[in-house]
Parts: sequence; structure tokens; C-alpha cells
Amino acid sequence: MTNIAILGFGVVGGGVADVITKNNDTIARKTGEHINIKYILDLREFPNHPLGDRVVHDMNIILSDPEVTVVAEMMGGAHPAYDYSRAALEAGKHVVTSNKEVVATFGAELLEIAREHHVRYLFEASVGGGIPVIRPMSSCLAANALYEVDGILNGTTNYILTQMIRAGKSFEEALAEAQAKGYAERNPAADVEGLDACRKICILSALAFGKSFSPADIHTEGITKITLDDVAAAEMYGGVIKLIGRTGLCDPDDPDSPVYMLVAPHVIAHDNPLAGVDDVFNSILVRGNAVGDVMFYGRGAGNLPTASAVVADIIDILSHKDAEIFVPGWKTAGADELCQTETLPYAFLVRMKAESRGAAVAGVRAAYPDAEILTAADDDNGTLAFVTPVTTEKALGEAFPDGVLSAVRIMP
Amino acid sequence: MTNIAILGFGVVGGGVADVITKNNDTIARKTGEHINIKYILDLREFPNHPLGDRVVHDMNIILSDPEVTVVAEMMGGAHPAYDYSRAALEAGKHVVTSNKEVVATFGAELLEIAREHHVRYLFEASVGGGIPVIRPMSSCLAANALYEVDGILNGTTNYILTQMIRAGKSFEEALAEAQAKGYAERNPAADVEGLDACRKICILSALAFGKSFSPADIHTEGITKITLDDVAAAEMYGGVIKLIGRTGLCDPDDPDSPVYMLVAPHVIAHDNPLAGVDDVFNSILVRGNAVGDVMFYGRGAGNLPTASAVVADIIDILSHKDAEIFVPGWKTAGADELCQTETLPYAFLVRMKAESRGAAVAGVRAAYPDAEILTAADDDNGTLAFVTPVTTEKALGEAFPDGVLSAVRIMP
Repeated sequence: MTNIAILGFGVVGGGVADVITKNNDTIARKTGEHINIKYILDLREFPNHPLGDRVVHDMNIILSDPEVTVVAEMMGGAHPAYDYSRAALEAGKHVVTSNKEVVATFGAELLEIAREHHVRYLFEASVGGGIPVIRPMSSCLAANALYEVDGILNGTTNYILTQMIRAGKSFEEALAEAQAKGYAERNPAADVEGLDACRKICILSALAFGKSFSPADIHTEGITKITLDDVAAAEMYGGVIKLIGRTGLCDPDDPDSPVYMLVAPHVIAHDNPLAGVDDVFNSILVRGNAVGDVMFYGRGAGNLPTASAVVADIIDILSHKDAEIFVPGWKTAGADELCQTETLPYAFLVRMKAESRGAAVAGVRAAYPDAEILTAADDDNGTLAFVTPVTTEKALGEAFPDGVLSAVRIMP
Repeated sequence: MTNIAILGFGVVGGGVADVITKNNDTIARKTGEHINIKYILDLREFPNHPLGDRVVHDMNIILSDPEVTVVAEMMGGAHPAYDYSRAALEAGKHVVTSNKEVVATFGAELLEIAREHHVRYLFEASVGGGIPVIRPMSSCLAANALYEVDGILNGTTNYILTQMIRAGKSFEEALAEAQAKGYAERNPAADVEGLDACRKICILSALAFGKSFSPADIHTEGITKITLDDVAAAEMYGGVIKLIGRTGLCDPDDPDSPVYMLVAPHVIAHDNPLAGVDDVFNSILVRGNAVGDVMFYGRGAGNLPTASAVVADIIDILSHKDAEIFVPGWKTAGADELCQTETLPYAFLVRMKAESRGAAVAGVRAAYPDAEILTAADDDNGTLAFVTPVTTEKALGEAFPDGVLSAVRIMP
């Protein structure tokens, strides 16, 4: 029997307890032993919960109990989650977490502390909820030099965009519906402004390329400026707009090359498998030099899917007890190791004002002779939609110094 | 440095050597050591290959060399692949394989021998080529009681069906094209009759439920009887026909319940994520009681994707050296632990002769009052397509004792 402690008994912490309770026999069948939740750290009491007698309010009780070998940090937020995780690792306890903020910001440091103390720091649940992606990338694809990772990493924004595309709802209407269904927070900024996706792509980038960047250094656009006119233009092009976290090697053949990374709405052509990922589902596409493209798909959030990933990490630890596991480190990297987003090669789907269609088309042709005009002449409503050839954000801005209505990147 | 031996230097064995050679530094960065291919067992000589000096013709050289810790069996076929794998395990060497025939037929026995000798028998490459699925199922989803696995497991048949659906080619035309492109063997029986998919679903079923069934006991239909008329009827219904391997617990809440398993063409509704998996791509959908649905997608074949999975298994072994890994066993199960396929609940897409439309519709309504007639009255070409409510193959046969033109299962 393995004794664990759960830090934080909210939605995810409660889900972890539920999954362990419900599936303990299944787990024992697979690993040879049961899991015992010895402590639950929370500020509150839970007198009516079957595990209410496990609740403690002092982290030192957990740190000083040698029977506790695994700590599951389910608190959320940077502090004290980071501090408790660090203390647990230093006390020789394995730590598993779903906390993307802590992993994205402090992952390099916590992995190093774990290595020094011969314990593990695992975070499968920090990206993609229950979708297996962290372990498949670090283990199943280990024979590959990876060179790109693209993901639909935030279920809230994917639900909103799906409603805009399928039901023709405005961003505001779709957001209100997502909030009513519990898919979006009352303050939705972290989701709709792209911060949540940014933390996740930072984690995936560090896994793929060994370099840990600060989320603050990453070009991050949300979906608040996407309009139904953009959605319609994407459909004319033959695609859908999705919020994508994207990272890769600037030189795909050189594992030491700088890295590009951004979070932004992208037009995804219908034949790209990411185009079919709708509603609150997430999907991560990984490219390696042997395997080609592989994709992982599932529910990116929810208490039970997330708990599924947390408990899988606990099972991994108890399946490899006393093993000296080689943990590849993350090197903390500065913004100078990032390629500039504004110079990345991209085609753009552009919408611009066109009081005179003839003049507008001539202006587009002057800047990009090969541009594809999407708006038909008889569908002239004072705007023009077109697709640039591959260019850069910087060049596009210089070509249209008076600005455009919108410019959405097209996924290569 | 870890010394390995490759058995069989054909397409996959050569791919394994290529991936190790090309990515050895990447591998060492992740694991702390390089891989050395000490021996290649093959009947042939390869005098002009850079690794030609590693070629040997006697398995005993490999078995008796204590420096060889991992054997990669890439021979294909049941014998001597099984015999050599067994001998290597008994000699205390880890074995990795892409050989679905050996894993499906002898997996339970070889896993048991591996356990007795404290070594590992790994087979990520046996299902889905390079797609991570074996390890994610056994490790990342270990917290779940799994209850269903559905997969597009054979790239050849998926390519043929995609050509029938998208380009309106007949089965024969699409097969000839697949052969010309190298996607189908000259003798395509193992693919188009469903045997290859059957071996793979047997492996996935054993992983999910711990019971190993003989492929010979599994209801296996290929795609040779699928016509363009069936494809058109599926489109009228709102779906596409895919060859699906399907397995699950007959009682999803009871892990000890009997298991259903079959390989057969299924109509997949357009909103099922498996419907969008085209060409030679494979995809495996796994359902668990915590995670919900997760899906794994990628190229199901090819020398480099398959080698990617084989080398990942080797890396897994050298990442966990000297660890006592708990290996869940597979219990060999008899056909009496399988639910009868002909009594599984399914709706069917049926096409039947209809010399008189009125009489045919009346006959359908007599058997299934709630049947949905798909063929419009003005599209009457002597046949009638309809969808039954949920029934069984047995009941359908009894309802139409004179037979029907075709009856394709509809994925629930």
C-alpha cells in the first residue's frame, strides 16, 4: 500500500480522491498494490465527506510523515503550490501536479530539485486534461528528434469558436453560453486572452526541445477580436479558425536551433486533422523525424479526466519504485533564444475596408501580386477578404501601413 | 552504452537501424547513453551496408553474448520469430518487437516468461505503427477502468475505402491503386480480409481487459464485399464506411464481465472523430470510466514510424535499468468468455432488392416499424436502403430469411 497526500480538495483534488476510491481495485490489479489517501491538506473542513477524517491544515504534518511517499498538488495558483511542491521534493517525496502555472513557470527548477533528491516531479495533467500527451512525448516518441508541436489546448475558447462557426453566434453570445454551461469562468480572461494556452505550449515546448521559456516572453493573442466576418472568410478559404499554441525549431534539422512559439488564432484547412476538433475537446499534434505526425485527442478539462492523468502519474511512480529514473532536464532559456514571431513565415487571411473594390484589389495586387482574392465581385459589402502568399507579420504591416480589419495566420 | 541485436534486416529492421544511427545523440541526450547495434541476424549478407560487419547467421552468438541486453525482433511471421523471442527472454535479455502475429498469438506466454526471467517484453510497434497507444493505454490510462476500444487499425483498407468514398472508385480499382502505391501487398488477403486488424484488436483487448483471445476465435469480416452502393447508402445516412476493430466489456461496469470483439466494416457518423481518419492513417479510440474518450492518431505503418515505436521501447528499457517493473499478465481466455457477435446490439444499414417499392417498404415496416427508409421514392432503382433500430445480426437474419444485398453495422 502506498500512502499519498492530496494538497487542495477542490474540483480536481476531489476528482483525484473519487478516481482512487472508485478504481482502487483496478489500480491494484495493474500495479500490485492499493493507494491510501492518508492526508488531505485544505483550509476547510469536510465533516460530511467519507475522507473528512484525513483533512489536515498544516503542511508540516505531511512533510514530516515518512509514510507519505507521494504528494498530489491540486491547489492551483503559483503560491503556496510552488512552495509546498518544492518542500515536498526536498523532503524526498514524489510530487504529481495538474498545475500548469507552476509547471510552466517553475518546472525547470522543480525538475532539478527532484533530480537532486532522487524523486520524481510529474505533470501529465497539466496539459490536455486526461489526454495522454506528456508521457507519450517524453517516452513513446523518445526515438525521434521532435521539431514541431501544435495544439488546441484550451477547451473554453474551442467551445466558443465552435459555436461561432457552427451556430453563427457572436463571440459575446458564445462566451455567455460557455459561462452558463460552466465551461468558462466568470472572469474568462485567462482563457479567452490565451494565457492558459500559453502556459501549456510553454510546457510542451520545454518537453520537446529541452528549453524552458517564461510565458511572459511568448507572443500571445486570444480570440476576443475574432468576428463572424473572420469566420465567414475562413470558410471561403476552406477552413476554420482555431486558437492554436504552436512551437517548433526554427531550423527543423538542428535540435540546438532557436525555438519559435506563439499562441494565436489560426485558419486550419478542413483536411488538417486539427480542423475537426470541436467543442471542449483538445488535441495535440506532434511532429517527429521518424514517426511523422501523431495526434492525441480528448477532453482537455473536467475533474475526472484531469484526475485520470494525476492518478496515472501516481501509478507510474509506484510501478517504478526504487528505480533510478533518468530525468531529462529543462534548461531555462531567455527571450534571445526565441525567433521573432513577427518574422515567422506565414500566409495570412486578411480582411480590409474596400470603399472602391477596384482600388482595393489594385492595392492588394500591388503589395502581393499572387494574393488570392476571396470576396466575389457580386458579394461586395464594402470589405475585401484575401489570402497573402507566405510572408511575415512585419512585411504585412509594412504593405498596409493604414492597417487592415483583421489578419489571421494560416496554419502551414 | 547499451548493446542490442536486431533480428531480421528487412524494411522494419533496416528502419530501426536508420533511426538509431540518425538519432543516437538525441537518444543519448534523453537517456544518458548511446545504443550500439552489436549484431544483426539475417540469412543474407549486406556487404555494402555500413553495418554489414554486424551481420551474423547464428542466433546462438547473440544468445550467448552477455553484453547484449536487448533483442529487437523484426523478422515477422510466427516462426522462428516466436522461438527466438522466447530463447532471448529465457537467456535474460529484454525483447522488443513489431510482430503483431507473435504478440497476438503468443503474447500471454511470452509476457509470463519475461516476468519469470525479470526482463521485459515490449511491443509498442505491433499496433498502430508509430502511434503511441500500447504504453499510453497501459500506463497513462492506468487509473481508469477501460470498457471499450475501437480502432481503424489497418492502413491498406482505410486507403481503399477512402478512395471508394472520395473518388468513387470500385473496390477492385482502389485495391489496384493501393498495390501500385505500395500500400497493399500483391496478395492482399491479410489486409482486405481483416486478419491484420484482427491481430491488432486482440492485442488491444488483452491490454485493456487482461484476457488474451486467439485471433481464430474472433468474428472477422473484411471489406471485399463493400460496394459503391453501400458507400452511397452510408452517405445518405450521414456517415462513412470504415473497417473497425472493436472490443469492450459486455457489461461496461464489470471488469470481470465477458468481452465482445469483432472486426467488421462499420458506418461511422460524420460527427464521430474516427470518421475523419482517412487514407493510410490509423486511429484508436479508448474509453475509460474517468478519462472519457481519448483518441490516438497517426501513420499506422511505414518503416520509420514503426521503427520509432521499436526504438522507444528500447529507450524505455534503458531508462529503467535494474528496475523491477510490475508487468500485468494476460490470462489466456477461451471463446466461452466472448459474447456472441450475432447477439450484440447494433443498428444496421441495410440494402435489399425491391422490385416493387411498396411491397419492400411494407416488408421492412412489418419487421421494424421504426426503420428509417433512406431511398427516396423518386430515386427508385430496384433497391431499397434503410436503417434498422438497434437489433442483432441474428434477429435481422430471422426478419429477412431470403437475405438482403448488404447489412453494415452502424457504430453506436
